[in-house]
Amino acid sequence: MKIACLLYPNFTSADLINPITVWQFVPGVQFEFIAAEKGPVATDTGLSFNATHSFADASPTPDVVFVPGGAKPTFDALGDPALLDTIARLSQNAGWVTSVCTGSLLLGAAGLLNGYRAACHWYPREWLRKFGATPSDARVVVDRNRATGGGVTSGMDFALHMVGMWGGEASGRLIELMIEYAPEPPFGTGRPELADAATLSTARQFMAAEFSETVVDRAAQRLTASPRAATA
Amino acid sequence: MKIACLLYPNFTSADLINPITVWQFVPGVQFEFIAAEKGPVATDTGLSFNATHSFADASPTPDVVFVPGGAKPTFDALGDPALLDTIARLSQNAGWVTSVCTGSLLLGAAGLLNGYRAACHWYPREWLRKFGATPSDARVVVDRNRATGGGVTSGMDFALHMVGMWGGEASGRLIELMIEYAPEPPFGTGRPELADAATLSTARQFMAAEFSETVVDRAAQRLTASPRAATA
Repeated sequence: MKIACLLYPNFTSADLINPITVWQFVPGVQFEFIAAEKGPVATDTGLSFNATHSFADASPTPDVVFVPGGAKPTFDALGDPALLDTIARLSQNAGWVTSVCTGSLLLGAAGLLNGYRAACHWYPREWLRKFGATPSDARVVVDRNRATGGGVTSGMDFALHMVGMWGGEASGRLIELMIEYAPEPPFGTGRPELADAATLSTARQFMAAEFSETVVDRAAQRLTASPRAATA
Repeated sequence: MKIACLLYPNFTSADLINPITVWQFVPGVQFEFIAAEKGPVATDTGLSFNATHSFADASPTPDVVFVPGGAKPTFDALGDPALLDTIARLSQNAGWVTSVCTGSLLLGAAGLLNGYRAACHWYPREWLRKFGATPSDARVVVDRNRATGGGVTSGMDFALHMVGMWGGEASGRLIELMIEYAPEPPFGTGRPELADAATLSTARQFMAAEFSETVVDRAAQRLTASPRAATA
């Protein structure tokens, strides 16, 4: 099973690392870490990762395409035609087209979610409609061969869910035990409806400074103008 | 706040990424990613990360020392005197000495857990006693300035707990919401006492092939023979 993981500048590293931590236990799995150029790619925390493949030399027919999200960096990436074209191209023959967090906005901008239900980070979730998708507040959404996770930490639930679909529940149960996934969130504020008003208001301010509806509108206009290429 | 993150060949990337995903929101935080040499370090999934500092040029007085774990790679690292000496040296004046998963075995081998309670991955947890530590099955254990998390995915709970201690609960509530940490483990087998017998037996076989009590015994003998340097 070949999994194409797309990397772009300053993406949210946890969106990628949690899924591949789970998927590394899938028998025969092979990851390709794909960026504009092979070599170092900055991530959100300042730690840089090394892409193993450029857009040009990625295997053209992966079994799974996976796109991580980010805060402002993902909105910058919505204006990157080479990234969106690569996502669209690799997804053409892929068995699964997947994302975590705002990665679903990139799938949408690549023309891959029109008519599909999808998950996303809670803040920009409704903007998926601009790409013809139906947003869901579920932590993991599977609609035909599109599988999407919610905000950042949903990547663990998302990846385990996929393992259950790919290899059966016994695999999922085993991996959950090996990575000791019995979470105990200390504050219990991990969804807008669980958070107190002050926490929610501060989070919204932070997100408003990072996430841009205008950028999504522009990406949607380009997609409408040029639906096959997915970018202007 | 300067956080020294220790990297070594093939360590478990999620052990590092989840905590720094949380900690990047701490005002004024600075990470140093420290390995034997600056530059690429392989991780468990095949993705490589770039260390920003070598052991020699790491800042000598970090506020926090953080050590991630791993499966067999951590047991290999237990025989690496340069790594253990660096952990011991940087911890000497650190405000907090911390780890996730089997990282606590490395803290133990560096002489830093004698007389302390500590968490660890469930499989090798009891082996902490060889370093004078008292193992705990809690997901996060804080004993004076030692803070340790359980297996792999505990890193999220551990890091949020620390943020609550460092910056107050409001910070913790905010970060939990921003990273949408409302986990939904799909299988409910994340601890030995929650798993069915077949899952537990398969996991134990996997762990027995990766984790070596003999290696821990040898590290403990070296520590006893040379308690100050922490290594032979």
